[in-house]
Amino acid sequence: MDYNGIFKAAIDRLHDEGRYRVFIDILRNKGNFPNARCFHGHNGPKPITVWCSNDYLGMGQHDKVIAAMEQALHDVGAGSGGTRNIGGNTHLHVNLEAELADLHAKEAALLFTSGYVSNEATLSTIAKLLPGCVVYSDELNHASMIAGIRNSGCEKKIFRHNDLDHLEQLLMDAPAEAPKLIAFESVYSMDGDIAPIEAICDLADKYGAITYLDEVHAVGMYGARGGGISERDGLAERVTIIEGTLGKAFGVMGGYVAADKTIIDCIRSYAPGFIFTTSLSPVLAAGALASVKHLKGSDVERNAQQDKAAMLKRKMVEAGLPVMPSVTHIVPLMVGDPVKAKDISDILLAEYGCYVQPINFPTVPRGTERLRFTPGPFHTEAMMDELVKGLKEIWGRLDLKLAA
Amino acid sequence: MDYNGIFKAAIDRLHDEGRYRVFIDILRNKGNFPNARCFHGHNGPKPITVWCSNDYLGMGQHDKVIAAMEQALHDVGAGSGGTRNIGGNTHLHVNLEAELADLHAKEAALLFTSGYVSNEATLSTIAKLLPGCVVYSDELNHASMIAGIRNSGCEKKIFRHNDLDHLEQLLMDAPAEAPKLIAFESVYSMDGDIAPIEAICDLADKYGAITYLDEVHAVGMYGARGGGISERDGLAERVTIIEGTLGKAFGVMGGYVAADKTIIDCIRSYAPGFIFTTSLSPVLAAGALASVKHLKGSDVERNAQQDKAAMLKRKMVEAGLPVMPSVTHIVPLMVGDPVKAKDISDILLAEYGCYVQPINFPTVPRGTERLRFTPGPFHTEAMMDELVKGLKEIWGRLDLKLAA
Repeated sequence: MDYNGIFKAAIDRLHDEGRYRVFIDILRNKGNFPNARCFHGHNGPKPITVWCSNDYLGMGQHDKVIAAMEQALHDVGAGSGGTRNIGGNTHLHVNLEAELADLHAKEAALLFTSGYVSNEATLSTIAKLLPGCVVYSDELNHASMIAGIRNSGCEKKIFRHNDLDHLEQLLMDAPAEAPKLIAFESVYSMDGDIAPIEAICDLADKYGAITYLDEVHAVGMYGARGGGISERDGLAERVTIIEGTLGKAFGVMGGYVAADKTIIDCIRSYAPGFIFTTSLSPVLAAGALASVKHLKGSDVERNAQQDKAAMLKRKMVEAGLPVMPSVTHIVPLMVGDPVKAKDISDILLAEYGCYVQPINFPTVPRGTERLRFTPGPFHTEAMMDELVKGLKEIWGRLDLKLAA
Repeated sequence: MDYNGIFKAAIDRLHDEGRYRVFIDILRNKGNFPNARCFHGHNGPKPITVWCSNDYLGMGQHDKVIAAMEQALHDVGAGSGGTRNIGGNTHLHVNLEAELADLHAKEAALLFTSGYVSNEATLSTIAKLLPGCVVYSDELNHASMIAGIRNSGCEKKIFRHNDLDHLEQLLMDAPAEAPKLIAFESVYSMDGDIAPIEAICDLADKYGAITYLDEVHAVGMYGARGGGISERDGLAERVTIIEGTLGKAFGVMGGYVAADKTIIDCIRSYAPGFIFTTSLSPVLAAGALASVKHLKGSDVERNAQQDKAAMLKRKMVEAGLPVMPSVTHIVPLMVGDPVKAKDISDILLAEYGCYVQPINFPTVPRGTERLRFTPGPFHTEAMMDELVKGLKEIWGRLDLKLAA
């Protein structure tokens, strides 16, 4: 059996399609973010500006977060040393879950090692506990939600992205007595659009469904206390389960869900992806706790981020670049070809010191390859001008289409 | 649809079976490990001794680990801010992977957010890339390996625990031309026994299979450099893929696999559980790097742990307690009933300040519920005497069976 040949062929297919991924080797520089250091390749080693971080608000370098982590490091130590059930349930985990439940106006919350795991573990477990459950999934849902739904073994109906009519049609088709779960995101991170949460909750009520809302690209950034779009729109109590991450706007690492006590107890008690894994490091729990608390009381970071996102979009539009119609902090620039997207990214990094990763399949559908910029509070107008100047020059050099 | 009733019934089933899990709310005390603080219940708040941590060597409080994490916290910040492909590939990740590849004498290694995810993502991805693959799985394999094999969608054959004859019989039954993957562990953590790695590799060679070895309970603790049982027995090069964790003996958090370059490139490029998740915090990567490096050069911690494990086993045997025949650092005490196991654990914590979690289904088969002790370098003989005295008294009080 030529195993090596099979594995090599799998890699060759990626090269052939132009979507073999090369990880850019960087090191951020706390106190100087979004500046970082690029190690090998692209005319490096050299300093660069990062334009594609999901540390949207720079909380990963916030003094309160760093101080809380340093204290936990010295008081408690590096790791938790066990699963939540076997020695790994620290007081920091308990406090963080209480803080997150409060953030989303829910009775309880549950921590996971990542947002990916929280989606996979929760969706697979909840759907499995409901006999004959039909799961309704937005076609652009994240890979982790897709994995969770598939692993539940339940019947799955995919509705067209944010398409209420299609969702209702599918809900009508199912038996009235079947349990139903509608799974969707608030902010879709590769396009920057927002789901019609209220109308989806109305449909859920009408057809007796429960709802699962992924807010990973919204928590910390929307709502008066950073509770996400569901808080901003006053809908948190209508959504059955809200899922979030500690690794993007909160700047640390980990994921969670918030819901009523019984549902959280079910996930805690039945989800293999929760039960059989070492709990979050207490150092991370301490940092996340400080970050969530801070963003509950401070609007400065979210407002600055929205201002910077609007500024960059405006500058790109003025330059004739094909910015996609995002209504959020996400600034996607359509390229539509994996090789060209990578070329632009490579030139930007090598010649302009601007780091933005090309986004290709399977993260986005083939033919919609793009660059995705995430300006934050610490990107200056001068950095933006430099970036846009570079993009315009490269657009011309590679003979790419400008906006219509 | 009475969703709440369904979820409540699921919780009631756990109470009825006596296996509803209550997490003990503790906080470790760095510099004082295995002592910790218990918050609520069990006559707390009060100081306790932890007997069930998987921070086997106390590396979670080692000076080098703490110093490395503190430095990364101040130089780089709290989180990585992105997936490995999109902004979250730091130089610390790259260096840690090189260190782990070297530890296992492999060409390459790949980091995951947890050992659970490394098993799930790697097994599901590798088996899926091999058309018609048959996966051979030891019946006591960890839940994360079971999840990965199931999610691969491949045909699965379960062989009796460590049973070479049964494994060979199943290998013979499959078509010679089918790709085959044998998945097993080195140290089985709930029993403390060890797989016949060399003989399994011999069978793999004979029947043209590749091998996947989970060493999470062995890395850092066995082998001259902490490379696990496969290093101790000189077999690392014969195993195709070695999987390990950074969250047990290395004292931090995260998981990894090590293998040849092409296989690692395949997992890196195809596994959703790797691609679509924020990478490990650079703080954790720095701590793990320091821990792996230290244990490569130091035998002090592993030797002390083996001595302490032998000492506790001896004391339990002398007391007539039903210690299971572990050949490793794991000290399991058979109870055989979920309610009694929990009773013993509750009394130990409330009256003796000794914390050991009862292990019940689904972590172990029903009817084999047990207490699992993990003595380490920092447990003193006086602590052991106190523990064994308590166990003897409780064994009498609850009228439990002593060893035959």
